[in-house]
Amino acid sequence: MAQQDFTVQLLLTGNEIMSGDTVDSNSAFIARRLQELALSVFRKVTVGDDVALLQHELSAMAENADLVIVNGGLGPTIDDLTAQVVAAVADVPLTQHPDAVAHLESWCAKRNAPLNAANMKQAMLPAGASIIANPVGSAVGFEVTVKGCRVVCTPGVPSEMFAMMDDIVDSLAEQLHRPSGVNIVRLQTFGIGESTAQQLIADNISDWPEDVELGFRAGAPQMEVKLTINSTTAAAAQQRCKAQLLDLLGYHVIGEGDMQLAQRVLELLRERGSTLTTAESCTGGLIASMLTRIAGASEGFHAGFVTYHNAIKHSVLGVNEASLEEEGAVSETVVRQMALGAMEKSGAEYAIAVSGIAGPDGGSDDKPVGTVWLAWGTAESVKTRCLCWPVERSLFQTMVAAAGLDMIRRTLLGTDEEPRYFAQRRA
Amino acid sequence: MAQQDFTVQLLLTGNEIMSGDTVDSNSAFIARRLQELALSVFRKVTVGDDVALLQHELSAMAENADLVIVNGGLGPTIDDLTAQVVAAVADVPLTQHPDAVAHLESWCAKRNAPLNAANMKQAMLPAGASIIANPVGSAVGFEVTVKGCRVVCTPGVPSEMFAMMDDIVDSLAEQLHRPSGVNIVRLQTFGIGESTAQQLIADNISDWPEDVELGFRAGAPQMEVKLTINSTTAAAAQQRCKAQLLDLLGYHVIGEGDMQLAQRVLELLRERGSTLTTAESCTGGLIASMLTRIAGASEGFHAGFVTYHNAIKHSVLGVNEASLEEEGAVSETVVRQMALGAMEKSGAEYAIAVSGIAGPDGGSDDKPVGTVWLAWGTAESVKTRCLCWPVERSLFQTMVAAAGLDMIRRTLLGTDEEPRYFAQRRA
Repeated sequence: MAQQDFTVQLLLTGNEIMSGDTVDSNSAFIARRLQELALSVFRKVTVGDDVALLQHELSAMAENADLVIVNGGLGPTIDDLTAQVVAAVADVPLTQHPDAVAHLESWCAKRNAPLNAANMKQAMLPAGASIIANPVGSAVGFEVTVKGCRVVCTPGVPSEMFAMMDDIVDSLAEQLHRPSGVNIVRLQTFGIGESTAQQLIADNISDWPEDVELGFRAGAPQMEVKLTINSTTAAAAQQRCKAQLLDLLGYHVIGEGDMQLAQRVLELLRERGSTLTTAESCTGGLIASMLTRIAGASEGFHAGFVTYHNAIKHSVLGVNEASLEEEGAVSETVVRQMALGAMEKSGAEYAIAVSGIAGPDGGSDDKPVGTVWLAWGTAESVKTRCLCWPVERSLFQTMVAAAGLDMIRRTLLGTDEEPRYFAQRRA
Repeated sequence: MAQQDFTVQLLLTGNEIMSGDTVDSNSAFIARRLQELALSVFRKVTVGDDVALLQHELSAMAENADLVIVNGGLGPTIDDLTAQVVAAVADVPLTQHPDAVAHLESWCAKRNAPLNAANMKQAMLPAGASIIANPVGSAVGFEVTVKGCRVVCTPGVPSEMFAMMDDIVDSLAEQLHRPSGVNIVRLQTFGIGESTAQQLIADNISDWPEDVELGFRAGAPQMEVKLTINSTTAAAAQQRCKAQLLDLLGYHVIGEGDMQLAQRVLELLRERGSTLTTAESCTGGLIASMLTRIAGASEGFHAGFVTYHNAIKHSVLGVNEASLEEEGAVSETVVRQMALGAMEKSGAEYAIAVSGIAGPDGGSDDKPVGTVWLAWGTAESVKTRCLCWPVERSLFQTMVAAAGLDMIRRTLLGTDEEPRYFAQRRA
């Protein structure tokens, strides 16, 4: 990571971050927003709420960077030291900023709250600072230039910092003459690992352009593939790469941007005016929960059944008692009957059913922990598959729930192609 | 945050952290483990995988700290630079460490994988280093002393670093003659906010001992209250504070340590040999999912119903069609019938039922977004309550699901006391 022509450093402050009581996700968010301008963060320092230490760090940073983003320390309490520290490093006094006062007044008025002395502290900013609007909180952000370095101060409350980043990115884009927001393409995938994807690309695309940076962000259940360009001249190359990736990864791609599996399934159901139901044993309601987390889920999802106990599989979904006894709850026969029962009880056209062994207990030589039977499809055509995902309980539930949604997505897309994880997770 | 007698700094390395593709939760974990020894992290620096920059930072840190924990850069690839950097700063050569080789050999043998050159790089450590065992990965940790400072190097893979921290904490406890693991008491609470808890404590405990540090960690849905002491001489005071807090917070305390609401409910059901069922509309399976995430949930939870659509509330749970039409799905009558229907269909002794408006659409003047009816109890005694939680959809679902579990917990504990959120979230 070589130092680039425009150097960015981050200074984070907060005792709660130092103690580990809070995990800092703000700096990752800031870094990702800066990537839109092809800027990377060179160095990041985190310290507690200590004036001398903050002054020392900020002063050193301002000498070595073109941009320092400070996060935290803008609140109303005596622990909030950022304005004081920046004023000291810039060697200017703290003065009451009229725009900040106006913001505080309207903020308090909207809430019928008195504007108290603690709040007024938030209007005391380094002389000459320009403010950054905070649409969601009482603390305005602000910016000053120190030793030729832009010092941009943002609140530690994530939602407030998030709300300021558009303005900050726009202002940087103007300074750097870079178009913002156009140079990252993100693809959401399921069922293909980072190393497999990398190998596929290496084997199939020999002339990957140098000006299109390829990145992966592995999550559970999805993996994001990211194409970043640093200048608009690479836009055509980026589009070519994207087309090649879509071709290579095929149905493993769920969609672009932030697309989630459940969201895509609900979209496809909506297009068809169709509905889906769930019959869950080992995932215990997680598939239903993933669907209903999406706003507007009620259109495509009317009913879900959590049939954790064998007797309930029989009484609620009509699974044959003999099948349960003879083949066990984790079997093709049972999971197929669960899917059919759920469709019958709910009137839904499509169903996902899952029955497996999430562990840590309940496994056997025959059916070890991680074994799961999945069923999906319509009453006319229920498909089934046995997989083995021997991972920790909640990760197992997450991956299996996602696999169920994925198979419905593939069914709705009309493909019979087997996803790669069918081979990798063969039971 | 004054510099203490034993200064700790963290050096984190990894391009994926700098880019924001990965959120660093390792440093929070390390900080929390160090708290067990009453050690706080004074300063934390994060940089990309750059030899010169890493050497510069580590060298400065070693001069100013008693302990530097380096995280990341121990992998097999050329980007993994930590051993090289530490050797340069310590001014010693890299040599093949026999214990590290032995670890790699047994690691590969267990996996029937060949020991390749990339792996062997992980055995090249600074001369004189002592290794830290890695029970879950191929990269051993290691430690050297540089300019009188202990430099402890750990892997960036969270599970591997976690697995090493016991040994590291034990070794520090020995060096510092501090007993470890005895000086933090954590209480898990639900339904009381940080500011309310602070006010309650300020109003009721005038003589809070100086040597017991009080901390809060607000999460969704739970809040943790933490009592930290720095020496065993404060242990009695800590126990007194804990007793006072239990008294003040009453039934808002779920349990100690990491106790989760669903886990506590399942414990209480197990003690009574009883079972619980769920009838969910707006929470869409989340309550069932919270319960089944806990290992062993099958004992107390056999069946859950996600009745998202009105017709399903009728057909699956037997809710009266006239009630649905006249009073609407979000009503006391309907939620009560949902609870009764779920108990009847499942044979469970206890039920939670919820019906509400998660938003962003679906609200009205009469029943705005955030309105929810909860029902809970046994067939003989179903209690109901209407609350209003006008927050973002998934937070609404999380809080409402937790409130349902909380009311069953209180019922199982035999209390009729109303939780504080009943008044605060009155519809």
